[in-house]
Amino acid sequence: MVAKSYSIAVGTAGEGDFIDITARVEEAVGRSSITEGILSVSVRSTTSAVVVCENEKGLLLDLAIMLARLAPSELRYEHDSAWGDGNGRSHVKAALCGQAVTLPVAASKLVKGRWQSIFLLEFDVRARERTVDVVIVG
Amino acid sequence: MVAKSYSIAVGTAGEGDFIDITARVEEAVGRSSITEGILSVSVRSTTSAVVVCENEKGLLLDLAIMLARLAPSELRYEHDSAWGDGNGRSHVKAALCGQAVTLPVAASKLVKGRWQSIFLLEFDVRARERTVDVVIVG
Amino acid sequence: MVAKSYSIAVGTAGEGDFIDITARVEEAVGRSSITEGILSVSVRSTTSAVVVCENEKGLLLDLAIMLARLAPSELRYEHDSAWGDGNGRSHVKAALCGQAVTLPVAASKLVKGRWQSIFLLEFDVRARERTVDVVIVG
Repeated sequence: MVAKSYSIAVGTAGEGDFIDITARVEEAVGRSSITEGILSVSVRSTTSAVVVCENEKGLLLDLAIMLARLAPSELRYEHDSAWGDGNGRSHVKAALCGQAVTLPVAASKLVKGRWQSIFLLEFDVRARERTVDVVIVG
Repeated sequence: MVAKSYSIAVGTAGEGDFIDITARVEEAVGRSSITEGILSVSVRSTTSAVVVCENEKGLLLDLAIMLARLAPSELRYEHDSAWGDGNGRSHVKAALCGQAVTLPVAASKLVKGRWQSIFLLEFDVRARERTVDVVIVG
Repeated sequence: MVAKSYSIAVGTAGEGDFIDITARVEEAVGRSSITEGILSVSVRSTTSAVVVCENEKGLLLDLAIMLARLAPSELRYEHDSAWGDGNGRSHVKAALCGQAVTLPVAASKLVKGRWQSIFLLEFDVRARERTVDVVIVG
Protein backbone atom coordinates (compact mmCIF):
# COMPACT_ATOMS: atom_id res chain seq x y z
CA MET A 1 0.00 0.00 0.00
CA VAL A 2 1.26 3.39 -1.01
CA ALA A 3 0.00 6.94 -1.45
CA LYS A 4 0.92 8.92 -4.55
CA SER A 5 0.19 12.62 -5.12
CA TYR A 6 0.19 14.68 -8.29
CA SER A 7 -0.55 18.34 -8.90
CA ILE A 8 -2.17 19.44 -12.13
CA ALA A 9 -1.98 23.11 -13.19
CA VAL A 10 -5.03 24.32 -15.11
CA GLY A 11 -5.42 27.79 -16.57
CA THR A 12 -9.03 28.90 -16.94
CA ALA A 13 -10.69 31.71 -18.89
CA GLY A 14 -12.99 32.68 -16.00
CA GLU A 15 -16.72 32.25 -15.36
CA GLY A 16 -18.31 29.42 -17.32
CA ASP A 17 -15.05 27.80 -18.41
CA PHE A 18 -15.70 24.12 -17.70
CA ILE A 19 -12.59 22.04 -18.43
CA ASP A 20 -12.40 18.27 -18.91
CA ILE A 21 -9.42 17.03 -16.87
CA THR A 22 -10.12 13.28 -17.20
CA ALA A 23 -7.10 12.55 -19.41
CA ARG A 24 -4.74 14.30 -16.99
CA VAL A 25 -6.19 12.38 -14.02
CA GLU A 26 -5.84 9.11 -15.95
CA GLU A 27 -2.23 9.98 -16.71
CA ALA A 28 -1.61 10.38 -12.96
CA VAL A 29 -3.20 6.98 -12.30
CA GLY A 30 -0.91 5.43 -14.92
CA ARG A 31 2.21 7.02 -13.41
CA SER A 32 1.25 5.91 -9.88
CA SER A 33 1.62 2.18 -10.60
CA ILE A 34 -1.18 1.65 -8.08
CA THR A 35 -3.39 -1.26 -9.14
CA GLU A 36 -6.33 -0.96 -6.76
CA GLY A 37 -7.54 1.78 -4.43
CA ILE A 38 -9.24 5.13 -4.04
CA LEU A 39 -8.52 8.28 -6.00
CA SER A 40 -9.36 11.80 -4.83
CA VAL A 41 -9.40 14.81 -7.18
CA SER A 42 -9.70 18.23 -5.57
CA VAL A 43 -9.05 21.88 -6.37
CA ARG A 44 -7.41 24.43 -4.02
CA SER A 45 -10.06 27.07 -4.50
CA THR A 46 -13.32 28.47 -3.17
CA THR A 47 -14.59 29.81 -6.51
CA SER A 48 -14.27 26.69 -8.66
CA ALA A 49 -15.43 23.09 -8.31
CA VAL A 50 -14.63 19.54 -9.35
CA VAL A 51 -17.57 17.41 -10.53
CA VAL A 52 -18.28 14.37 -12.65
CA CYS A 53 -20.49 14.90 -15.69
CA GLU A 54 -20.80 14.08 -19.37
CA ASN A 55 -18.62 15.99 -21.81
CA GLU A 56 -21.41 17.30 -24.03
CA LYS A 57 -21.66 20.97 -24.99
CA GLY A 58 -25.42 21.33 -24.52
CA LEU A 59 -25.28 19.73 -21.09
CA LEU A 60 -22.44 21.97 -19.90
CA LEU A 61 -24.55 24.96 -20.93
CA ASP A 62 -27.60 23.51 -19.11
CA LEU A 63 -25.47 23.14 -16.00
CA ALA A 64 -24.29 26.77 -16.21
CA ILE A 65 -27.89 27.95 -16.74
CA MET A 66 -29.19 25.98 -13.76
CA LEU A 67 -26.44 27.33 -11.51
CA ALA A 68 -27.25 30.87 -12.68
CA ARG A 69 -30.86 30.26 -11.58
CA LEU A 70 -29.63 29.20 -8.13
CA ALA A 71 -27.19 32.10 -7.75
CA PRO A 72 -28.22 34.83 -10.22
CA SER A 73 -25.74 37.52 -11.22
CA GLU A 74 -28.40 40.25 -10.71
CA LEU A 75 -28.68 39.63 -6.97
CA ARG A 76 -26.79 41.62 -4.39
CA TYR A 77 -24.27 39.46 -2.48
CA GLU A 78 -23.00 40.34 0.98
CA HIS A 79 -19.56 39.05 0.01
CA ASP A 80 -19.40 41.60 -2.83
CA SER A 81 -20.44 44.43 -0.51
CA ALA A 82 -17.57 43.52 1.80
CA TRP A 83 -14.88 42.73 -0.76
CA GLY A 84 -15.94 44.37 -3.99
CA ASP A 85 -14.55 41.61 -6.19
CA GLY A 86 -17.96 40.76 -7.66
CA ASN A 87 -17.65 37.00 -7.21
CA GLY A 88 -20.16 36.33 -4.43
CA ARG A 89 -22.15 34.16 -6.81
CA SER A 90 -18.97 32.23 -7.71
CA HIS A 91 -18.37 31.32 -4.06
CA VAL A 92 -21.87 30.02 -3.39
CA LYS A 93 -21.93 27.96 -6.60
CA ALA A 94 -18.56 26.45 -5.70
CA ALA A 95 -19.66 25.58 -2.14
CA LEU A 96 -22.75 23.86 -3.54
CA CYS A 97 -20.94 21.84 -6.24
CA GLY A 98 -18.01 20.80 -4.07
CA GLN A 99 -14.26 20.90 -4.49
CA ALA A 100 -13.56 17.16 -4.55
CA VAL A 101 -14.66 13.85 -6.05
CA THR A 102 -13.55 10.32 -5.22
CA LEU A 103 -13.44 7.47 -7.73
CA PRO A 104 -12.16 3.89 -7.65
CA VAL A 105 -8.94 2.65 -9.20
CA ALA A 106 -8.94 -0.99 -10.37
CA ALA A 107 -6.64 -2.99 -12.68
CA SER A 108 -4.33 0.08 -12.66
CA LYS A 109 -7.05 2.23 -14.24
CA LEU A 110 -9.51 4.90 -13.22
CA VAL A 111 -12.93 3.21 -12.89
CA LYS A 112 -15.63 5.30 -14.54
CA GLY A 113 -18.82 4.97 -16.51
CA ARG A 114 -18.86 5.34 -20.29
CA TRP A 115 -20.12 8.93 -20.17
CA GLN A 116 -18.35 10.10 -17.03
CA SER A 117 -15.73 12.83 -17.31
CA ILE A 118 -14.05 14.75 -14.51
CA PHE A 119 -14.55 18.50 -14.87
CA LEU A 120 -13.02 21.56 -13.31
CA LEU A 121 -15.82 24.15 -13.23
CA GLU A 122 -14.53 27.71 -13.15
CA PHE A 123 -17.03 30.09 -11.53
CA ASP A 124 -14.78 33.07 -10.78
CA VAL A 125 -15.38 36.24 -12.76
CA ARG A 126 -11.82 36.42 -14.09
CA ALA A 127 -9.21 34.07 -15.55
CA ARG A 128 -7.46 31.99 -12.89
CA GLU A 129 -4.54 29.57 -12.56
CA ARG A 130 -5.86 26.52 -10.65
CA THR A 131 -4.05 23.74 -8.82
CA VAL A 132 -5.82 20.38 -8.93
CA ASP A 133 -4.54 17.68 -6.55
CA VAL A 134 -4.81 14.02 -7.48
CA VAL A 135 -4.10 11.60 -4.64
CA ILE A 136 -4.28 7.84 -5.02
CA VAL A 137 -4.03 5.40 -2.12
CA GLY A 138 -3.98 1.65 -2.68
CA MET B 1 -3.14 -1.96 4.78
CA VAL B 2 -5.19 -3.27 1.90
CA ALA B 3 -7.70 -2.04 -0.67
CA LYS B 4 -10.83 -4.06 -1.37
CA SER B 5 -13.34 -3.35 -4.15
CA TYR B 6 -16.90 -4.54 -4.64
CA SER B 7 -19.42 -3.86 -7.38
CA ILE B 8 -23.11 -3.70 -6.58
CA ALA B 9 -25.67 -4.04 -9.38
CA VAL B 10 -28.83 -2.02 -8.83
CA GLY B 11 -31.83 -2.03 -11.16
CA THR B 12 -33.88 1.16 -11.01
CA ALA B 13 -37.39 2.03 -12.20
CA GLY B 14 -36.30 5.41 -13.63
CA GLU B 15 -36.86 9.02 -12.54
CA GLY B 16 -37.59 9.41 -8.83
CA ASP B 17 -36.59 5.89 -7.84
CA PHE B 18 -34.44 6.49 -4.76
CA ILE B 19 -32.97 3.22 -3.48
CA ASP B 20 -31.46 2.58 -0.04
CA ILE B 21 -28.20 0.65 -0.60
CA THR B 22 -26.89 0.86 2.99
CA ALA B 23 -27.29 -2.86 3.74
CA ARG B 24 -25.38 -3.81 0.60
CA VAL B 25 -22.57 -1.39 1.42
CA GLU B 26 -22.41 -2.76 4.97
CA GLU B 27 -22.22 -6.29 3.57
CA ALA B 28 -19.19 -5.23 1.51
CA VAL B 29 -17.54 -3.76 4.63
CA GLY B 30 -18.12 -7.06 6.45
CA ARG B 31 -16.62 -9.11 3.61
CA SER B 32 -13.56 -6.84 3.37
CA SER B 33 -12.21 -7.76 6.83
CA ILE B 34 -10.87 -4.19 6.99
CA THR B 35 -11.06 -2.88 10.55
CA GLU B 36 -10.28 0.83 10.09
CA GLY B 37 -10.14 3.11 7.07
CA ILE B 38 -12.03 5.07 4.42
CA LEU B 39 -14.91 3.80 2.30
CA SER B 40 -15.95 5.33 -1.02
CA VAL B 41 -19.31 4.57 -2.66
CA SER B 42 -19.76 5.79 -6.25
CA VAL B 43 -21.97 5.13 -9.25
CA ARG B 44 -20.76 4.86 -12.87
CA SER B 45 -23.33 7.22 -14.27
CA THR B 46 -24.05 10.84 -15.18
CA THR B 47 -27.82 10.67 -14.63
CA SER B 48 -27.92 9.23 -11.11
CA ALA B 49 -26.28 10.17 -7.82
CA VAL B 50 -25.12 8.74 -4.50
CA VAL B 51 -26.04 10.74 -1.39
CA VAL B 52 -26.51 10.23 2.33
CA CYS B 53 -29.98 10.98 3.71
CA GLU B 54 -32.64 9.65 6.03
CA ASN B 55 -34.80 6.79 4.79
CA GLU B 56 -38.17 8.45 5.30
CA LYS B 57 -40.83 8.54 2.57
CA GLY B 58 -41.88 12.16 3.08
CA LEU B 59 -38.30 13.37 3.00
CA LEU B 60 -37.47 11.50 -0.19
CA LEU B 61 -40.47 13.18 -1.81
CA ASP B 62 -39.32 16.59 -0.48
CA LEU B 63 -35.90 15.97 -2.01
CA ALA B 64 -37.44 15.08 -5.40
CA ILE B 65 -39.67 18.18 -5.26
CA MET B 66 -36.75 20.48 -4.41
CA LEU B 67 -34.65 19.06 -7.26
CA ALA B 68 -37.60 19.55 -9.64
CA ARG B 69 -37.63 23.22 -8.60
CA LEU B 70 -33.93 23.50 -9.44
CA ALA B 71 -34.20 21.68 -12.78
CA PRO B 72 -37.87 21.76 -13.84
CA SER B 73 -39.14 19.30 -16.44
CA GLU B 74 -40.94 22.12 -18.30
CA LEU B 75 -37.72 23.92 -19.24
CA ARG B 76 -35.96 23.44 -22.54
CA TYR B 77 -32.53 21.83 -22.11
CA GLU B 78 -29.74 22.22 -24.66
CA HIS B 79 -28.73 18.61 -24.05
CA ASP B 80 -32.19 17.45 -25.15
CA SER B 81 -32.06 19.58 -28.29
CA ALA B 82 -28.78 17.92 -29.22
CA TRP B 83 -29.55 14.33 -28.19
CA GLY B 84 -33.31 14.06 -27.99
CA ASP B 85 -33.26 11.66 -25.05
CA GLY B 86 -35.19 14.03 -22.79
CA ASN B 87 -32.89 13.66 -19.79
CA GLY B 88 -31.18 17.05 -19.68
CA ARG B 89 -32.73 17.68 -16.28
CA SER B 90 -31.43 14.30 -15.08
CA HIS B 91 -27.86 15.23 -15.95
CA VAL B 92 -27.86 18.58 -14.16
CA LYS B 93 -29.48 17.11 -11.02
CA ALA B 94 -26.87 14.34 -10.99
CA ALA B 95 -23.96 16.76 -11.39
CA LEU B 96 -25.29 18.85 -8.50
CA CYS B 97 -25.87 15.93 -6.10
CA GLY B 98 -22.63 14.13 -6.89
CA GLN B 99 -21.74 10.55 -7.79
CA ALA B 100 -19.74 9.62 -4.69
CA VAL B 101 -19.72 9.74 -0.90
CA THR B 102 -16.97 8.82 1.54
CA LEU B 103 -17.57 7.45 5.02
CA PRO B 104 -15.33 6.07 7.77
CA VAL B 105 -14.88 2.40 8.65
CA ALA B 106 -14.06 1.64 12.30
CA ALA B 107 -14.17 -1.55 14.38
CA SER B 108 -14.88 -3.42 11.10
CA LYS B 109 -18.11 -1.48 10.59
CA LEU B 110 -19.42 1.39 8.50
CA VAL B 111 -19.49 4.49 10.73
CA LYS B 112 -22.74 6.38 10.32
CA GLY B 113 -25.24 8.39 12.25
CA ARG B 114 -28.48 6.85 13.51
CA TRP B 115 -30.56 8.33 10.66
CA GLN B 116 -28.00 8.13 7.88
CA SER B 117 -28.66 5.86 4.93
CA ILE B 118 -26.77 5.67 1.64
CA PHE B 119 -29.05 6.24 -1.33
CA LEU B 120 -28.76 5.75 -5.05
CA LEU B 121 -30.89 8.51 -6.60
CA GLU B 122 -32.13 7.65 -10.08
CA PHE B 123 -32.82 10.76 -12.15
CA ASP B 124 -32.90 9.26 -15.63
CA VAL B 125 -36.25 9.19 -17.45
CA ARG B 126 -36.18 5.44 -17.99
CA ALA B 127 -35.33 2.29 -16.04
CA ARG B 128 -31.59 1.68 -15.79
CA GLU B 129 -29.15 -0.98 -14.60
CA ARG B 130 -26.59 0.78 -12.38
CA THR B 131 -23.15 -0.28 -11.19
CA VAL B 132 -22.21 1.01 -7.75
CA ASP B 133 -18.55 0.69 -6.72
CA VAL B 134 -17.61 0.26 -3.08
CA VAL B 135 -13.90 0.64 -2.33
CA ILE B 136 -12.44 0.36 1.16
CA VAL B 137 -8.83 1.20 2.01
CA GLY B 138 -7.44 0.62 5.49
CA MET C 1 0.57 2.78 5.35
CA VAL C 2 -1.81 3.29 8.20
CA ALA C 3 -5.32 4.55 8.87
CA LYS C 4 -5.96 6.94 11.75
CA SER C 5 -9.39 8.07 12.97
CA TYR C 6 -10.41 10.99 15.16
CA SER C 7 -13.80 12.15 16.36
CA ILE C 8 -14.48 15.84 16.88
CA ALA C 9 -17.44 16.95 19.00
CA VAL C 10 -19.05 20.19 17.84
CA GLY C 11 -21.93 21.90 19.61
CA THR C 12 -24.07 24.05 17.31
CA ALA C 13 -26.65 26.76 17.97
CA GLY C 14 -29.07 25.45 15.34
CA GLU C 15 -30.13 26.66 11.89
CA GLY C 16 -27.58 28.93 10.22
CA ASP C 17 -24.72 28.19 12.61
CA PHE C 18 -21.80 27.61 10.25
CA ILE C 19 -18.68 26.58 12.17
CA ASP C 20 -15.09 26.63 10.91
CA ILE C 21 -13.50 23.31 11.95
CA THR C 22 -10.27 23.67 9.95
CA ALA C 23 -7.99 24.07 12.97
CA ARG C 24 -9.41 20.94 14.60
CA VAL C 25 -8.97 18.92 11.39
CA GLU C 26 -5.39 20.18 11.09
CA GLU C 27 -4.75 19.16 14.68
CA ALA C 28 -5.89 15.62 13.81
CA VAL C 29 -3.53 15.57 10.81
CA GLY C 30 -0.67 16.61 13.08
CA ARG C 31 -1.45 13.89 15.64
CA SER C 32 -1.72 11.20 12.94
CA SER C 33 1.97 11.39 11.95
CA ILE C 34 0.84 10.51 8.43
CA THR C 35 3.00 12.28 5.85
CA GLU C 36 1.09 11.66 2.62
CA GLY C 37 -2.40 10.43 1.84
CA ILE C 38 -6.12 11.17 1.73
CA LEU C 39 -8.18 12.76 4.48
CA SER C 40 -11.96 12.40 4.80
CA VAL C 41 -14.06 14.69 7.02
CA SER C 42 -17.69 13.68 7.56
CA VAL C 43 -20.54 14.34 9.97
CA ARG C 44 -22.91 11.69 11.38
CA SER C 45 -26.06 13.58 10.59
CA THR C 46 -28.79 14.12 8.00
CA THR C 47 -29.55 17.74 8.91
CA SER C 48 -26.05 19.22 8.75
CA ALA C 49 -23.30 19.21 6.14
CA VAL C 50 -19.52 19.47 5.70
CA VAL C 51 -18.30 21.76 2.92
CA VAL C 52 -15.22 23.73 1.93
CA CYS C 53 -15.65 27.50 1.64
CA GLU C 54 -14.02 30.78 2.55
CA ASN C 55 -14.37 32.00 6.12
CA GLU C 56 -15.91 35.39 5.35
CA LYS C 57 -19.05 36.62 7.10
CA GLY C 58 -20.74 38.05 4.03
CA LEU C 59 -20.19 34.89 2.05
CA LEU C 60 -21.57 32.64 4.79
CA LEU C 61 -24.71 34.79 4.78
CA ASP C 62 -24.92 34.57 0.95
CA LEU C 63 -24.69 30.79 1.24
CA ALA C 64 -27.51 30.68 3.81
CA ILE C 65 -29.65 32.97 1.64
CA MET C 66 -29.10 30.85 -1.48
CA LEU C 67 -30.00 27.66 0.37
CA ALA C 68 -33.14 29.33 1.71
CA ARG C 69 -34.12 30.09 -1.91
CA LEU C 70 -33.67 26.39 -2.79
CA ALA C 71 -35.56 25.10 0.25
CA PRO C 72 -37.71 27.97 1.61
CA SER C 73 -39.02 27.83 5.16
CA GLU C 74 -42.52 28.88 3.97
CA LEU C 75 -43.05 25.72 1.92
CA ARG C 76 -44.89 22.69 3.23
CA TYR C 77 -42.61 19.65 3.53
CA GLU C 78 -43.91 16.07 3.50
CA HIS C 79 -41.31 15.16 6.12
CA ASP C 80 -42.80 17.73 8.51
CA SER C 81 -46.32 16.43 7.92
CA ALA C 82 -45.15 12.94 8.88
CA TRP C 83 -42.84 13.82 11.77
CA GLY C 84 -43.82 17.27 12.93
CA ASP C 85 -40.27 18.31 13.80
CA GLY C 86 -40.27 21.17 11.31
CA ASN C 87 -36.89 20.36 9.79
CA GLY C 88 -37.87 19.11 6.33
CA ARG C 89 -35.94 22.00 4.80
CA SER C 90 -32.90 21.09 6.91
CA HIS C 91 -32.84 17.56 5.50
CA VAL C 92 -33.02 18.58 1.85
CA LYS C 93 -30.33 21.25 2.26
CA ALA C 94 -28.07 18.70 3.96
CA ALA C 95 -28.60 16.09 1.24
CA LEU C 96 -27.72 18.67 -1.41
CA CYS C 97 -24.57 20.00 0.31
CA GLY C 98 -23.23 16.60 1.32
CA GLN C 99 -21.91 15.17 4.57
CA ALA C 100 -18.29 14.59 3.58
CA VAL C 101 -15.29 16.19 1.90
CA THR C 102 -11.93 14.69 0.96
CA LEU C 103 -8.66 16.60 0.88
CA PRO C 104 -5.02 15.64 0.35
CA VAL C 105 -2.39 15.33 3.06
CA ALA C 106 1.21 16.09 2.00
CA ALA C 107 4.39 16.82 3.95
CA SER C 108 2.42 15.92 7.12
CA LYS C 109 -0.04 18.77 6.50
CA LEU C 110 -3.55 19.28 5.22
CA VAL C 111 -3.27 20.53 1.62
CA LYS C 112 -5.64 23.42 1.00
CA GLY C 113 -5.90 26.66 -0.89
CA ARG C 114 -5.23 29.99 0.79
CA TRP C 115 -8.95 30.77 1.24
CA GLN C 116 -10.24 27.26 1.88
CA SER C 117 -11.74 26.44 5.25
CA ILE C 118 -13.65 23.33 6.28
CA PHE C 119 -17.10 24.17 7.60
CA LEU C 120 -19.76 22.29 9.49
CA LEU C 121 -23.06 23.77 8.30
CA GLU C 122 -25.87 23.34 10.81
CA PHE C 123 -29.29 23.31 9.14
CA ASP C 124 -31.40 21.81 11.91
CA VAL C 125 -33.96 24.05 13.60
CA ARG C 126 -32.56 23.49 17.08
CA ALA C 127 -29.16 23.32 18.79
CA ARG C 128 -27.38 20.00 18.22
CA GLU C 129 -24.31 18.10 19.41
CA ARG C 130 -22.52 16.87 16.27
CA THR C 131 -19.88 14.19 15.80
CA VAL C 132 -17.42 14.89 12.99
CA ASP C 133 -15.18 12.01 11.89
CA VAL C 134 -11.72 12.67 10.50
CA VAL C 135 -10.06 9.67 8.87
CA ILE C 136 -6.61 9.81 7.29
CA VAL C 137 -5.10 6.97 5.24
CA GLY C 138 -1.56 7.14 3.92
